[in-house]
Amino acid sequence: MINACICTIGDEILIGQVIDTNSSYLAVALEEAGVRVTRMISIGDKKEDIEETLRKELSRSTIVITTGGLGPTKDDITKGVLKELSGSRGYVEHAGQLEMIHKILSGRGLDILPINLAQAMVPDKAEVIVNQLGTAPIMVFRNIGGGTLYALPGVPHEAVGAIPAIMEDIRSHQQLTHICHRNIMVYGIAESALSELIAPWEDALPEDMHLAYLPNPLTGIRLRLSIYSGDEAEQKARIQEQLTALKAILGNRVYADGDSTLEETLGEIFKANGLTVSCAESCTGGEIAHLFTSVAGSSSYFLGSVTSYAISVKEKVLGVPVDTIREHGVVSSEVVAAMAEGVRRLTGSDYAVATTGLAGPSGDENNPVGTVWIGAAGPHGTQTVRCQFRHDRKRNIERFAASALDFLRRFVLADLNS
Amino acid sequence: MINACICTIGDEILIGQVIDTNSSYLAVALEEAGVRVTRMISIGDKKEDIEETLRKELSRSTIVITTGGLGPTKDDITKGVLKELSGSRGYVEHAGQLEMIHKILSGRGLDILPINLAQAMVPDKAEVIVNQLGTAPIMVFRNIGGGTLYALPGVPHEAVGAIPAIMEDIRSHQQLTHICHRNIMVYGIAESALSELIAPWEDALPEDMHLAYLPNPLTGIRLRLSIYSGDEAEQKARIQEQLTALKAILGNRVYADGDSTLEETLGEIFKANGLTVSCAESCTGGEIAHLFTSVAGSSSYFLGSVTSYAISVKEKVLGVPVDTIREHGVVSSEVVAAMAEGVRRLTGSDYAVATTGLAGPSGDENNPVGTVWIGAAGPHGTQTVRCQFRHDRKRNIERFAASALDFLRRFVLADLNS
Repeated sequence: MINACICTIGDEILIGQVIDTNSSYLAVALEEAGVRVTRMISIGDKKEDIEETLRKELSRSTIVITTGGLGPTKDDITKGVLKELSGSRGYVEHAGQLEMIHKILSGRGLDILPINLAQAMVPDKAEVIVNQLGTAPIMVFRNIGGGTLYALPGVPHEAVGAIPAIMEDIRSHQQLTHICHRNIMVYGIAESALSELIAPWEDALPEDMHLAYLPNPLTGIRLRLSIYSGDEAEQKARIQEQLTALKAILGNRVYADGDSTLEETLGEIFKANGLTVSCAESCTGGEIAHLFTSVAGSSSYFLGSVTSYAISVKEKVLGVPVDTIREHGVVSSEVVAAMAEGVRRLTGSDYAVATTGLAGPSGDENNPVGTVWIGAAGPHGTQTVRCQFRHDRKRNIERFAASALDFLRRFVLADLNS
Repeated sequence: MINACICTIGDEILIGQVIDTNSSYLAVALEEAGVRVTRMISIGDKKEDIEETLRKELSRSTIVITTGGLGPTKDDITKGVLKELSGSRGYVEHAGQLEMIHKILSGRGLDILPINLAQAMVPDKAEVIVNQLGTAPIMVFRNIGGGTLYALPGVPHEAVGAIPAIMEDIRSHQQLTHICHRNIMVYGIAESALSELIAPWEDALPEDMHLAYLPNPLTGIRLRLSIYSGDEAEQKARIQEQLTALKAILGNRVYADGDSTLEETLGEIFKANGLTVSCAESCTGGEIAHLFTSVAGSSSYFLGSVTSYAISVKEKVLGVPVDTIREHGVVSSEVVAAMAEGVRRLTGSDYAVATTGLAGPSGDENNPVGTVWIGAAGPHGTQTVRCQFRHDRKRNIERFAASALDFLRRFVLADLNS
């Protein structure tokens, strides 16, 4: 495998003002293409530091990718350093980027200043990939200090937007092992339990295959199966065979093939079956509705929700009987069932999901922090489940919401498959 | 100013599985204490890389802080490298960390395995700060390769939890310039417009003061004023004087003294005045309710919310007259006013805020993507405002929600001050 170093340039990262997410997106893309990232470095807008770091890293990495330091203002000095390092004699204007600068700035109704036009000037040894999303060009320097250097803008959506183009360039200029990856999305099992459950299958994987666990509180665990040898058709067939066996072990814990989220998966199910949904939230306080509506096009199946933080709202808006609350307590199976049924009735949706629990910081006399009751209601009845977490308020709200989405998914699928 | 290097150790960052947030929190703390971070580096769990990097950075930085590589498993090798670099002869057991290991694991109902106990063993040249949040000790190595090295665990809440203790150690062992910082929180003005508005004040700042702009889509702009000379009492008095002048320029755009969020500030206002609030959301889809309820203790003033994605929910649940929708369209001042009044009536809250708009990806015939109407209703009437953004769906939802909270804040304050 060839090596790469990712280098972010800019004071704003060193003072903690900005968290570097660009490096992480780049690393995922490089790793999936079969390039090993050996080092990530953040340095400031200081000539000697940029020079020294790039010289050193180019001498030991096949690829160096920089982000940042390409803005129009005086403190962005990376382009000048790259001119020297690459042995360029001067700057040349790049017609394609110049056109893009005009297009972007006039589209925003802004005047085009000389400092903007200067962004189209690049060292004469640079190849340019036109940045479609911003004014600073993406530059490629080949045979610079022993490696290839890609200079990307630092603005996150521009840097991430440049990834496909530079990955294509890397693929066409480097001898990469073809690696085939496939993801499946799993919810409702802890990483350690999952690892135990699939150990016999995982231990029997052939040597040229590798499984990675990529956990996330809102989406569960992404299992990525990679294969490192064989031609593409053979890789696809062999990976498919292994995934079929894996999915048979995991059953309905697998919620999607490929990258997806629980709310996207639910959206696909509702759309495909012409169904609608609503929700009633207590402890999750709007997070479930927020997740549903973060999906573009969700208005075709998501009708609405009620956040019933106060008991009076549970009674008056959702119609939870006051006796049910008095008898069983707010955090109970009976109350969450009445909430789900109440919002389903109120909105006229086919399905509804509800939550009541204690996100923290404190529990009550009957339930510790991290207790949640989840209810799902549909045309054939209502089901509830109790889950227990033990995190802080913020993480509990995330886990509660994701667990509710997954419970609803299984509930709807059971109806559809019956 | 003395220099520091932050070094994260672990393969999970290099493959992009984890975004490094620890370095950013450390950088903020160091910068505020008057330590300049000159470099951040991420390397993998590879002995030669760790050795070479730490040797190099210790030779040119007063302080090196590592995070990660201290876990109990075989792939965590940082402790062994530090033993060699520090010239330790062997390992010694640290009684305080050993006790903490027993306490933490038995508190989680877990067996205590030999690999857990081994975590209490540290190189004999290390000073230990007991990690109250995990099993790996925080280690301090003085006079190691020319600098001081702090080794922190990589788990984010443990690393962040260790910051106060190591900052105290740095303050007591290094000659730091005393820097005094004060923050104010500003909302409702773009960074460029803010910069123009306060330019006369900022240009007149004395040489030993510095203003930083720290923008965030959900909380607006944090303005940090720092002073680098004088004794503490003098610093405080001079900074107070400048902030008083700055706040007079900014008026009610300033929503808090010190670090805060809009939802926390609103919560303080509601609690202090014994008021309650509710919300009705269309395009923000639950995000406003989520922000309100992310504050611990919000149940004392936040009664609930309705997310009315479907028109039928706007009519049936919130009581928005069908004629109002037909006449003015869903995205209109009239509809958002009726939504705010509807949810206020429904929940019986003192105040209510509502949103209706187009987050994206597409607009409609009358409104482009990024249009939002915000309404606030209270005991003395209702007000609405139209805002226009032009981001993607996710960022528009954030901006809409933050703008609604700020509009409600000004609306409530106007009532309280009248």
